[in-house]
Amino acid sequence: MDAHASLSVGRYLAHRLLQIGAAHVFGLPGDFNLTLLDEMVAVDGLHWAGSTNELNAAYAADGYARVGRRCGALVTTFGVGELSAVNGIAGSYAEDVPVLHIVGMPSTSARASRTPLHHTFLDGDVDRFVRIAREVAVACEVLRPDDAAQQIDDVVTAMLTHRRPAYLGIPLDLAGWNVDADRLRVPLRAPSSDPAAVDAFRIALRARLATAADLTVLAGARVHRQGLEATVAALADHPGVRIASQTGAKALLDEDHPASLGTYLGAVTRSDETRDAVDDADPLVLIGAVFSDFTTGFFTQRYDAASAIQIDPDSARIAHAVYPGVRMADAVAVLTEETARRGFPPVFDPSRLTSERPGTEAARALGEPLTHAVLWPAVQRWLQPGTTVIAEAGTSFYGAVDLVLPPRSDLLGQPVWSSIGYTLPAALGAALARPEHRPVLFIGDGSAQLTIQELGALLDVDARPVVFVLDNAGYTVERLIQSPDAVYQDIRAWDWEALPPALGARRTATFAATTDAELRDVLAALEHETGPALVRLVLDARDAPRLLLALTAGISATNTH
Amino acid sequence: MDAHASLSVGRYLAHRLLQIGAAHVFGLPGDFNLTLLDEMVAVDGLHWAGSTNELNAAYAADGYARVGRRCGALVTTFGVGELSAVNGIAGSYAEDVPVLHIVGMPSTSARASRTPLHHTFLDGDVDRFVRIAREVAVACEVLRPDDAAQQIDDVVTAMLTHRRPAYLGIPLDLAGWNVDADRLRVPLRAPSSDPAAVDAFRIALRARLATAADLTVLAGARVHRQGLEATVAALADHPGVRIASQTGAKALLDEDHPASLGTYLGAVTRSDETRDAVDDADPLVLIGAVFSDFTTGFFTQRYDAASAIQIDPDSARIAHAVYPGVRMADAVAVLTEETARRGFPPVFDPSRLTSERPGTEAARALGEPLTHAVLWPAVQRWLQPGTTVIAEAGTSFYGAVDLVLPPRSDLLGQPVWSSIGYTLPAALGAALARPEHRPVLFIGDGSAQLTIQELGALLDVDARPVVFVLDNAGYTVERLIQSPDAVYQDIRAWDWEALPPALGARRTATFAATTDAELRDVLAALEHETGPALVRLVLDARDAPRLLLALTAGISATNTH
Repeated sequence: MDAHASLSVGRYLAHRLLQIGAAHVFGLPGDFNLTLLDEMVAVDGLHWAGSTNELNAAYAADGYARVGRRCGALVTTFGVGELSAVNGIAGSYAEDVPVLHIVGMPSTSARASRTPLHHTFLDGDVDRFVRIAREVAVACEVLRPDDAAQQIDDVVTAMLTHRRPAYLGIPLDLAGWNVDADRLRVPLRAPSSDPAAVDAFRIALRARLATAADLTVLAGARVHRQGLEATVAALADHPGVRIASQTGAKALLDEDHPASLGTYLGAVTRSDETRDAVDDADPLVLIGAVFSDFTTGFFTQRYDAASAIQIDPDSARIAHAVYPGVRMADAVAVLTEETARRGFPPVFDPSRLTSERPGTEAARALGEPLTHAVLWPAVQRWLQPGTTVIAEAGTSFYGAVDLVLPPRSDLLGQPVWSSIGYTLPAALGAALARPEHRPVLFIGDGSAQLTIQELGALLDVDARPVVFVLDNAGYTVERLIQSPDAVYQDIRAWDWEALPPALGARRTATFAATTDAELRDVLAALEHETGPALVRLVLDARDAPRLLLALTAGISATNTH
Repeated sequence: MDAHASLSVGRYLAHRLLQIGAAHVFGLPGDFNLTLLDEMVAVDGLHWAGSTNELNAAYAADGYARVGRRCGALVTTFGVGELSAVNGIAGSYAEDVPVLHIVGMPSTSARASRTPLHHTFLDGDVDRFVRIAREVAVACEVLRPDDAAQQIDDVVTAMLTHRRPAYLGIPLDLAGWNVDADRLRVPLRAPSSDPAAVDAFRIALRARLATAADLTVLAGARVHRQGLEATVAALADHPGVRIASQTGAKALLDEDHPASLGTYLGAVTRSDETRDAVDDADPLVLIGAVFSDFTTGFFTQRYDAASAIQIDPDSARIAHAVYPGVRMADAVAVLTEETARRGFPPVFDPSRLTSERPGTEAARALGEPLTHAVLWPAVQRWLQPGTTVIAEAGTSFYGAVDLVLPPRSDLLGQPVWSSIGYTLPAALGAALARPEHRPVLFIGDGSAQLTIQELGALLDVDARPVVFVLDNAGYTVERLIQSPDAVYQDIRAWDWEALPPALGARRTATFAATTDAELRDVLAALEHETGPALVRLVLDARDAPRLLLALTAGISATNTH
């Protein structure tokens, strides 16, 4: 590029997206974003991944960002399009996922003159939908001609800094507006740590570790959002260190690693040893952990967060002392160095939990109706390395959380926001972000109905996706909480095996299993499948994995108090 | 009920809904609304119409309210559920449809203590989603124990007054909270007119009519929202009165009535006589009309609204004099009385537009590929009295607008908000609100993909629904505006005839037509169908009805200026 090079706002934005890893853009065209799309898709390397609706676009962009450890992006149109995406964007906010929501808007002059256009309330209030967007974004700008490139950079930088969604409104006359291309030479980054704060954190941490006998880490989803899973996992190779994960960070450390404590969930943690190790740890190091009803087994944790070492995206904390401006990457680096320097003695390896794992359940007669107790151990044996397991809120997620993930695998779910329907489009995003891993989706029939229109695109990716539909006649998670026979718990019975070809995924192999034996046969057949597959698993409407039974009992108790 | 009778908030609300005509409630269950649903569905006469997702629930409630000339209602759950419905509620706001959005929330104590529950951002901000709701509602309350019944009544009254959506958040502990049942003896109503304002309006109107030679009315969708279509239509029986409609009020007056001027759309009005009659009227009476790009043929109206007589839901206006507090029903009554008193001479009947109507197009060879030019005249001949025509934004709506509706028929569309996907769930709502009328839906393939999961429920109603899918390989309306060959204009090809059985509507007869001759045969076959039917109409990706071509040319021109 020469010194006076310029390019359109749409192309500028596309280059910025490519720089932050968003090479696939989801969304739909609309009257107010056509020029924007024309400019964006003209940029080499940017792939348009057209969605069937805007909520699905937001979910797909979120899954793309999570599994790709990068940013996601979607383009919608003013009013009708953007508002349909709000729940998906809110989920990204709740779970710390950087997604840029780009909205094509009426022109600068139409906004200024408050023209009563379609897709408005005809009341001249041109910022109504921007006010809604602000509630679910860390940064929100409507472009102005004099400042457009700077506004784009500010919004993207805020998204990178806070790892949460941001919003960019682009009036249609500005999509083709020329801006300075030279700005693109400087990539956008989150701000660095404050070096003095890092030093202070190091000194305090060194003092704290001097009096410790060992180090127990509880890692949460925010570690993944910062792309620090390998760094945190490497802590496990130091003597005296043990690592437990929250459900959102299950894939952080190979669960066969001797220092792995598995998944911590307060009172519903599978093993007492794991629970005690976390609850009694001194010190406990919380890295990117989130504190919610579901991550604490309905607030049954016994550890005291106020005396812990906490490492968050933008700050660190040792008991009551907070160190603002220490970013997670630097805090984890300091923790690693100080742990090595301290040189803890080895801890006794926690007895491995093999005997309790799914996969080793007692044998029983085949040919009985399929149950969750049989399903997940069978899945455990079937899973191969290099799998992205995607598990929908409800029976699927809390079945998958009890799995031991194979190497080079990931678990995608939404433990905080828990919006049903999320995982089906998110699986598409995951498959596009990490095509070398096989996406394996577990989703209940009730959930799948919310977002089914993305099934065709999902089953059409090259990564040999497998979709398991848990066909249990409705909203089992709600049945477990209250009124299992209520009319509102039922859904319309669909012909799941007929859906892939109807939705344009004609290469898909379909299977069904209603018994143990059929499941065994289906899983064996899947090993020979070279294309996409959909498996309908027939389960009882009230059957659920152990963990979900415990959690819904917690919800029931909360609801009645 | 005795003097001390009480009942739960959920049951109280259900009785209030029944009183305002919302006998079907749409929505989905969720952790925070189960007690609410249990209480509501326990009330006789209230029918739970479970939806496949929340956006579809909002659309269905809107269609139910519009076609039933009543209020609609939906129940969602906190955060994840309510946010998915925002676009649908916004559409109800933009088009003046009273829909009550009822949201089950965390308990009063969890709100007070800001407990970090799932379905939140874990930041203790318990009013974030309420702030979003306020942007798309005329009233918005979260119930308090000391005031719950009054809050419900206030919100419902505001909805009845403004004929726009309202929002009610019900913490889960309050769903079963007891309130005074006696309140139910007093039905809720919109406030009455100010009698002095009505008198003043009458005197001014009488003076205005004294100098007029005749009376031309342009009626809009808000007439239907007030349930005043029969009253307004009755004006047409007075000598000297002629009535034109906006697209949202097409079904107001039988188009064969000698006083009918048909549909007015500024420069794209079908007949010059209609256009001139409206643009040159003195006086022009605007009753419940909306002023937008699409209702004015992109602002090509020549009439001067500032010199017109305007009758709106809450006020009337004669040129520059506004009469607040005159409600539409009273203003129309005064207009009717004063028109009778004035006794206009008969106007020459406008030459009927029969020669230009669809249905009388020149004969051409059968067997040619199907086109919009052939489709709509054929539909015109096939339509029977007592039909609810539901037409999706785009090719469908602007094809249907050129139809002459048969007697006792209605046209449901969304000319202002124009959110694609709206009509499929709205058709379900229409069918439940008016089961004696046959719902006939026209929807493009791109639009139908957004909300397809409601197809099973739609095709399962008793009213012999017919769904015409205009299979034209993508977003034709956007292709007409710009970049017809762009990658983002394409959609995945679905097997439309396979969808009804896959989505649980197994009784549905399916058809396809790719030529004139096949269309003729299909329409003939439909006359013998006693159950639901789906018809795939294969059309060229760039073919469109006359009106849409004119409107998209307007959009293109606006977009490039």
